[in-house]
Amino acid sequence: MTYIAPTTEQLFVLKHVVDIDALTQHPRFAATDGDMVDAIVEGIAQFAQAEYAPIAKVGDTVGARWDQGVVRMPEGYRAAYDALVANGWGTIDGPQAFGGQGMPFALTTVVMEDLGSANAGFSLVNMLTMGAIEALDHHGSPQQQARWLPKLITGEWPGTMNLTEPQAGSDVGALRTTATPVGDGTYRIKGTKIYITFGDHDLSDNIVHLVLARTPGAPAGTKGISLFIVPKYRLDANGNPGAFNDVRCVSIEHKLGMHASPTCVLSFGDNDDCIGELIGAEMGGMRAMFTMMNNARLNVGNQGVQIAEAATQMALAYARDRIQTPRADGSSGASPVAIIEHPDVRRMLLRMIAQTQAGRALVYYAAGQVDRTRTGDAAAKVRLDLLTPLAKAHGTDIGCEVASIGVQVHGGMGFIEETGAARHYRDVRITPIYEGTNGIQAADLVGRKLSGDGGAGLAALIADMRAEAQDARLRALIDAADAVGQWMLATASVNDRLAGSYPFLTLLSTAVCGWLMERQGRIAATMLAQGEGDPAFLRGKQSAAAFYLSHIVPEAMGLKDSAMAGANLLYDAAL
Amino acid sequence: MTYIAPTTEQLFVLKHVVDIDALTQHPRFAATDGDMVDAIVEGIAQFAQAEYAPIAKVGDTVGARWDQGVVRMPEGYRAAYDALVANGWGTIDGPQAFGGQGMPFALTTVVMEDLGSANAGFSLVNMLTMGAIEALDHHGSPQQQARWLPKLITGEWPGTMNLTEPQAGSDVGALRTTATPVGDGTYRIKGTKIYITFGDHDLSDNIVHLVLARTPGAPAGTKGISLFIVPKYRLDANGNPGAFNDVRCVSIEHKLGMHASPTCVLSFGDNDDCIGELIGAEMGGMRAMFTMMNNARLNVGNQGVQIAEAATQMALAYARDRIQTPRADGSSGASPVAIIEHPDVRRMLLRMIAQTQAGRALVYYAAGQVDRTRTGDAAAKVRLDLLTPLAKAHGTDIGCEVASIGVQVHGGMGFIEETGAARHYRDVRITPIYEGTNGIQAADLVGRKLSGDGGAGLAALIADMRAEAQDARLRALIDAADAVGQWMLATASVNDRLAGSYPFLTLLSTAVCGWLMERQGRIAATMLAQGEGDPAFLRGKQSAAAFYLSHIVPEAMGLKDSAMAGANLLYDAAL
Repeated sequence: MTYIAPTTEQLFVLKHVVDIDALTQHPRFAATDGDMVDAIVEGIAQFAQAEYAPIAKVGDTVGARWDQGVVRMPEGYRAAYDALVANGWGTIDGPQAFGGQGMPFALTTVVMEDLGSANAGFSLVNMLTMGAIEALDHHGSPQQQARWLPKLITGEWPGTMNLTEPQAGSDVGALRTTATPVGDGTYRIKGTKIYITFGDHDLSDNIVHLVLARTPGAPAGTKGISLFIVPKYRLDANGNPGAFNDVRCVSIEHKLGMHASPTCVLSFGDNDDCIGELIGAEMGGMRAMFTMMNNARLNVGNQGVQIAEAATQMALAYARDRIQTPRADGSSGASPVAIIEHPDVRRMLLRMIAQTQAGRALVYYAAGQVDRTRTGDAAAKVRLDLLTPLAKAHGTDIGCEVASIGVQVHGGMGFIEETGAARHYRDVRITPIYEGTNGIQAADLVGRKLSGDGGAGLAALIADMRAEAQDARLRALIDAADAVGQWMLATASVNDRLAGSYPFLTLLSTAVCGWLMERQGRIAATMLAQGEGDPAFLRGKQSAAAFYLSHIVPEAMGLKDSAMAGANLLYDAAL
Repeated sequence: MTYIAPTTEQLFVLKHVVDIDALTQHPRFAATDGDMVDAIVEGIAQFAQAEYAPIAKVGDTVGARWDQGVVRMPEGYRAAYDALVANGWGTIDGPQAFGGQGMPFALTTVVMEDLGSANAGFSLVNMLTMGAIEALDHHGSPQQQARWLPKLITGEWPGTMNLTEPQAGSDVGALRTTATPVGDGTYRIKGTKIYITFGDHDLSDNIVHLVLARTPGAPAGTKGISLFIVPKYRLDANGNPGAFNDVRCVSIEHKLGMHASPTCVLSFGDNDDCIGELIGAEMGGMRAMFTMMNNARLNVGNQGVQIAEAATQMALAYARDRIQTPRADGSSGASPVAIIEHPDVRRMLLRMIAQTQAGRALVYYAAGQVDRTRTGDAAAKVRLDLLTPLAKAHGTDIGCEVASIGVQVHGGMGFIEETGAARHYRDVRITPIYEGTNGIQAADLVGRKLSGDGGAGLAALIADMRAEAQDARLRALIDAADAVGQWMLATASVNDRLAGSYPFLTLLSTAVCGWLMERQGRIAATMLAQGEGDPAFLRGKQSAAAFYLSHIVPEAMGLKDSAMAGANLLYDAAL
């Protein structure tokens, strides 16, 4: 079973959900025209299928290995990574001043989708590098940008994000890593970081660690945190990797999935010889971190979609092949049929397809808001802020659900590792956890994102959805989202809001997905009527949209009560 | 983290859901009195905690190993199994004529619960043996019963079920294993079976395989299938294991979870020297198989509950320990608190507790119907038939949901294998698949179980629920279950019924669980008011029941539309 990138679907969503045509007419994206969009979507499909997919299995079974303080990637990974760099796939949305192509983030989203569907664990190295680029682009000095950005953008030197410490997980402010001024403007870094994705590997000649640390006398909590560039090898006078910078990988984690991605414990400055450069202002670390993490949240939401897509393709192929049992309605007589002919198997497959497309629409739509924000569109910024927790949490929830159904479609074979369905089920399980757990996303939604502007952002989204939505069930769900939002703003206590945050996030996400799916189904119908486009694809889109509206939207209505149930019940319970 | 059996909860459910007191007054269960019930529940708790739980981790990490045609269990397993046999835990509900204690199946359900919560993979050996006992007890000749049942009942010789072949999974009728008469009343068995749980191991001196095979000239499909006893070692004149019976374990599967349970490919008769005895009538295999499988389905539903219980205990312990972030409502000032204090973590934990208790109530309630059926209660038989697919499918769906939330509560630690949360997430994933996939359970519900008696069984269940249910949301859900059932009986085509079968199964299961949870909450309130019982336990029960009614019942209302959406949409889609 080989992964085939869903290029027709991707281009359709770019056109009708992102409105990429309008976007690329903005001077900010002058480098990107329509042909370029097609070329990127087709090109990354070929690349991911040819270079990333074939090594996914060895990435899972052999995985990244720790060997005497060094991490070694499985066979074929260095070559595939070199090909990625050589083909310029890292540069799509990087700033043009430093060798990037300045294309829309929505296109990077397609690039990441294909890489991740083909090889979820491996694609993390690019995701982390994007965060480092973002942080340096926004907060680095011109000298720092000139020194580090070109190699980060090509991918020659991948980046990492070093936030977590054993005592500081979601509570970043509790971190203890220290940064002591040396006197020449640099800092001596000392401390231990855990859960560092691609914290060490043999894919490249250098690694650019972005590290949160505390300067002497800094206040406790998040206010006292600064961000530093800490390379694995310090640069010599010519800007080439030179002396080892005293950053060691102490161990890597034995994880449920994502085995192609080494999750490292990194020790900085064991020999007091680890030097870092401050990025931006001292104590400005949290702001820089949020820059680094915000698009990462969309990228993780995208991972949910990526794994959902891969799981769906695998399940469809199996269900078309596997012959078992005659049709219950007698239409196949005594002849057993491919299981895809059985009603409940079709229900599972159509659910996988509909949820995957819904997740993709949500993530791409949010990615389009990143681009519009870059053009200075203030409303898009508000929309993006509101959608980011939805895309991250609901995209990854969809990934988990779809990967689990994928195992189910395979029956007993799904539980056997060789089949591959179980790999998706294992890989995807980290996505609701990292880059801010989905519970934290829900808290962000009902906290900063809802109350921060007195509900104006949500009201604008609801107005947009109401202006377009036609299906009665969808309109009822939008009304429910509105009612819950109003209740949270007007009546609910902090605890009540948080108690209902997760059901509300799912309800609102489903309304947004329903809105975007209905639109796509309507456009598909029009195109079919006018004889435009690929009829098989368009009919598939209609079916997915119809399933979403008739099954998934009504289910989400059941969340309204939970969302408004309040916190008393939770605190009455003696847990 | 050690597993502690929830004995207070188990006794409460036995009393108020199973009505064990009434049951044990029946002459059929004369051997069981109230003190015996307490002794069994307390005794198996101690045994499972002391013997089964400590070796669960090595069962997962080392696992059962195939070595030159023989399966070797990890260290400690033989000793633990010997202790199980020595303590008589296998004999609880076995027939008294052959050394069993003839106690209620509801008590066996408690025994299996504790063994499975402590060590899910290991407990499968007992589950399979129970099926073999059941088949022989109902279909074996007196001589066969005398020869095989005593050792099966003690567990000295574990049993297996051999149904599946590579081309015959859910479609058992497609199997090809042959049984050729030797002339002395026995049969020569030849064929390959796959997915044979505990098909080989070093726990015992013999293994009793129950094998479905086809006799010469037998008709195609399920009608031509017969059931055979095929021991690993043939019995000598004294009834002791003697000559090797030409049954080889060719390989074991590399599985997502349940690593302590060897899943074998068994080859029968490679050297034409594998001898089997026919059980019951020739061509009567399917009937015997259903006998063997029906309680197995309840036992698998129980596995969902077992793993849910273990995952919940682990998550609670972690959430009480893990200190992270101050309370959002300001009530802890700047001091970080245990994450169990945060609203959304409480929501997750209470959901785990409520779902686990709901699944337990459903499975125990169904187990009580097994016992009432044994006393000759015809209505109980109808209820049992209706509830079996619900207990199997919804119990295991609950297991999957709760184990996944368990990973989430652990945050990043949940994805690290050493933590143990991921093991539950892996182990549980087979439970919706084996013993008839959950999709097949749903088909059974809307097919044989619903239409077989023209809806009378469902109507009786709905009447019982309506007579007791008080909560408005629960009553609405019962009405919805009734409406869907009526529609399925009166209007829906075969395909429409199957298209809605899974949503209907979940909706109806939630109604049944809601009914049983509300009852328990009401009884807990009464007991608290009267100063009876353990107040901490009773308050916990009230919280779980309240959460179930306010969160989980309303969510299930959203399934009504899906259940009645019909099949057209599924077949319009070109998959």
